[in-house]
Amino acid sequence: MKIKDLAKIVDGAVDGNGDIEITGMDGIDTAEPGDLTFAIDENKLSEAEKSKASCILTVSSARKSSKPLIRVANPKLSFLVAYNALNASKEVKAFKHPSSNVSEKASIGKNVHIGAGVYIDDGVKIGDNVVIEANSVIKKNCEIGSFCRIYPNVTLYKNVKIGNNVILHGGVVLGSDGFGYVKDKGKIYKFPQLGRVIIEDDVEIGSNTTIDRGSLSNTVIGAGSKIDNLCHIAHNVKIGKNALIAAFCGIAGSVTIGSDVTIGGQVGIGDNLKIGDNVTIGAQSGVTSNIKSGSVILGFPARPIAQTRRQMAVLSWLEKNYKLVSAKIKEKDPA
Amino acid sequence: MKIKDLAKIVDGAVDGNGDIEITGMDGIDTAEPGDLTFAIDENKLSEAEKSKASCILTVSSARKSSKPLIRVANPKLSFLVAYNALNASKEVKAFKHPSSNVSEKASIGKNVHIGAGVYIDDGVKIGDNVVIEANSVIKKNCEIGSFCRIYPNVTLYKNVKIGNNVILHGGVVLGSDGFGYVKDKGKIYKFPQLGRVIIEDDVEIGSNTTIDRGSLSNTVIGAGSKIDNLCHIAHNVKIGKNALIAAFCGIAGSVTIGSDVTIGGQVGIGDNLKIGDNVTIGAQSGVTSNIKSGSVILGFPARPIAQTRRQMAVLSWLEKNYKLVSAKIKEKDPA
Amino acid sequence: MKIKDLAKIVDGAVDGNGDIEITGMDGIDTAEPGDLTFAIDENKLSEAEKSKASCILTVSSARKSSKPLIRVANPKLSFLVAYNALNASKEVKAFKHPSSNVSEKASIGKNVHIGAGVYIDDGVKIGDNVVIEANSVIKKNCEIGSFCRIYPNVTLYKNVKIGNNVILHGGVVLGSDGFGYVKDKGKIYKFPQLGRVIIEDDVEIGSNTTIDRGSLSNTVIGAGSKIDNLCHIAHNVKIGKNALIAAFCGIAGSVTIGSDVTIGGQVGIGDNLKIGDNVTIGAQSGVTSNIKSGSVILGFPARPIAQTRRQMAVLSWLEKNYKLVSAKIKEKDPA
Repeated sequence: MKIKDLAKIVDGAVDGNGDIEITGMDGIDTAEPGDLTFAIDENKLSEAEKSKASCILTVSSARKSSKPLIRVANPKLSFLVAYNALNASKEVKAFKHPSSNVSEKASIGKNVHIGAGVYIDDGVKIGDNVVIEANSVIKKNCEIGSFCRIYPNVTLYKNVKIGNNVILHGGVVLGSDGFGYVKDKGKIYKFPQLGRVIIEDDVEIGSNTTIDRGSLSNTVIGAGSKIDNLCHIAHNVKIGKNALIAAFCGIAGSVTIGSDVTIGGQVGIGDNLKIGDNVTIGAQSGVTSNIKSGSVILGFPARPIAQTRRQMAVLSWLEKNYKLVSAKIKEKDPA
Repeated sequence: MKIKDLAKIVDGAVDGNGDIEITGMDGIDTAEPGDLTFAIDENKLSEAEKSKASCILTVSSARKSSKPLIRVANPKLSFLVAYNALNASKEVKAFKHPSSNVSEKASIGKNVHIGAGVYIDDGVKIGDNVVIEANSVIKKNCEIGSFCRIYPNVTLYKNVKIGNNVILHGGVVLGSDGFGYVKDKGKIYKFPQLGRVIIEDDVEIGSNTTIDRGSLSNTVIGAGSKIDNLCHIAHNVKIGKNALIAAFCGIAGSVTIGSDVTIGGQVGIGDNLKIGDNVTIGAQSGVTSNIKSGSVILGFPARPIAQTRRQMAVLSWLEKNYKLVSAKIKEKDPA
Repeated sequence: MKIKDLAKIVDGAVDGNGDIEITGMDGIDTAEPGDLTFAIDENKLSEAEKSKASCILTVSSARKSSKPLIRVANPKLSFLVAYNALNASKEVKAFKHPSSNVSEKASIGKNVHIGAGVYIDDGVKIGDNVVIEANSVIKKNCEIGSFCRIYPNVTLYKNVKIGNNVILHGGVVLGSDGFGYVKDKGKIYKFPQLGRVIIEDDVEIGSNTTIDRGSLSNTVIGAGSKIDNLCHIAHNVKIGKNALIAAFCGIAGSVTIGSDVTIGGQVGIGDNLKIGDNVTIGAQSGVTSNIKSGSVILGFPARPIAQTRRQMAVLSWLEKNYKLVSAKIKEKDPA
């Protein structure tokens, strides 16, 4: 994309040669020729001029520069907008590493990059402009949409379905068997785990996160949701749109979560619970009951945040005053 | 297996052609020709008839169907029983992917499936009817029993020993070095981690779970135990038979756990502790002392569940009444 | 190394043939010919004599043995010292598995072992005496120092920089994108994650731990730090030297941590916080404020450990006495 085209996307003014081609974006320290970088003020502009970047996104008021500029109101926000424009729907160069193994019974779209050691089994369908990086494994009958990126060492069990613009980071495992057993006479029997994992459009899933397949229904992650590293989503969980779920969250079996929830790190949600829309759950909470839409909760068991904070305050108060309380209850009854 | 043979296993009555071959099992929505599915009532039976399944497990009282039926008292339980019968000891078709690397000094049993990119080092011994999926790595001198399934991207360090009927899900790491260091004069020295990981028969280990090798003894997971995704079992831990351990449990070094324990999600158990038989530990508990057999514990520090619940109730009570208590201790002594 | 050379390292006295070559170390049960083992007393010495080990490290006062001995004051400590001497800077035999894929634009040092299925991309620089095990993936422009060991199925995203004597265990992911988003009008935008992960010398990172790349700065792990399995270090975190971080710790974005900290298992540290030097954080704590150097903290929210313990004690006291307190506040006002 040319500088002048990028400038249109971020509603900015070009100062310099707008016909130079921009091929990537990076921070000031690591930018290479062809990259756009950004400078939030004059100091950063001086640093950026010394970088290898080919163009600098900076504030409207900035001085003239030795490099081409794009002047905008908010360089940081514009950087994000430009980044997404450059990256979200980037056309991929078709490539198939000779060490990859792709079944002849798989259907691979246009412009798909298949890295070294990738294994793609029978019946897999992959859309256009997808990147699958080294040593990832895609088992039978998985469906992957367009513009997805699968980083190295990812595992998709059979029948996993992934929408468009989905990012799976390194070591993610989707579709492993749920933790479902029946105890009978002291022995533990494995219950069949036959459902699918369905990941809707625009989802990003962090490194080494695991999402189990449904038992007899599906596990579903709603469009636009973002899940951090090392989370665990159990079988049959349904998560709505635009969830933000921080690291180490554990969502137990058959939980239903609405849209636009925000869940802090290390939260646990007990099985079969229903969480409404627009719920915010503070870090390290343990959710043990259904939660209404719009709630902000914290603690173990998780309660409205004001209540949990009062309990913390009251316990601190008692810690300081317990000798007085203790003396009081040992008083003789005044009657 | 033929329908009539399956019917014997679940003690059911065949209605239709019992000579049809059943090759798999699946839910109604995803069943394929050759599959057995199940229907818990007449409504589900109608759905199941529209599926591609070749046979339906349903209630004794069900109407005649266009597909062969097996009639039983409890289709769900029978489905599990049938599933285990079909899957637990299934004979595997011998296969060695040309991109796998198997040492000539490894001993591989009959009917072993070795997937693409699998690496098996010197001295490894593998039993019969084992499946090792794509890109898993089995290091020197590991021993794997019969009827095991190792999903993709699993890592076994050297000397790991695995019994029969063991399932390791994607991304599992067994036998990595324990977290053992000695601090001396401000520097941290690594203590040797030379023991093994020993996994007994019928164990299932969830995706991305890690189990460290023993330091100077072994880490042992007892027969029949089931460990969920993303758990961490530290060096020298010994777990008894039939444990059920939910996601994110962290069991610190040299803990000993009896048989038939149930551990909720996100539980931590401090190092060197002893946990008895038949113990139940509630989710998010932090165990800081030895626990007697039969205990049901919860909280941080983990105590008998009734006590932890009373403490929660008492704190709620104080939250509501602390102004009255506060007023009381500020009263002049009535004497 | 010969027995007599090892004896010098641990300041011990040889009893027997000091010219025998020692090629490894192991516990009594698993030692093989060529191995050094150790025996802390006469009983263990008898066991060790029956092992396959070629030499026994034991106490100064021990009796004569059928095997060569090295007599020292503290066999356990000397075993560690010997182990580090034998392992820390071991020269590696140059090896490149035919199934590995190493870019011609990568620079590989002397005595590097590259395992089966390893993928090394353009611009990667690797020092001397490095082992990279099967199916690990090293993306563009990573730099790896000397004497590093990378276990199987590890993923390094582009630009990750690793010092000397670093150990990365199985399934580690370094350099994945941080969890950075901007919500605007109900939609979630991904903020660019363009920084690096920098791992200094002598760091060890446990299995399946993930460390995200910086957003616009770098994520840095200080020299000598040891991180257990299944930890998550978010973008832009800076950790000082010699940290000990137990399993399941989650350190949120842009946290700064001093030197010589010790962090228990399942601890969470909130974003943007500053933790001083020599801080100790108890297991399962949730840190919600900056922490001064030298503090020992515990609980949620994490406070000085004595205060958290008093709160626990006071709550236990109230649990036992709340009926008396309740009766007291319901008394008629004595006035």
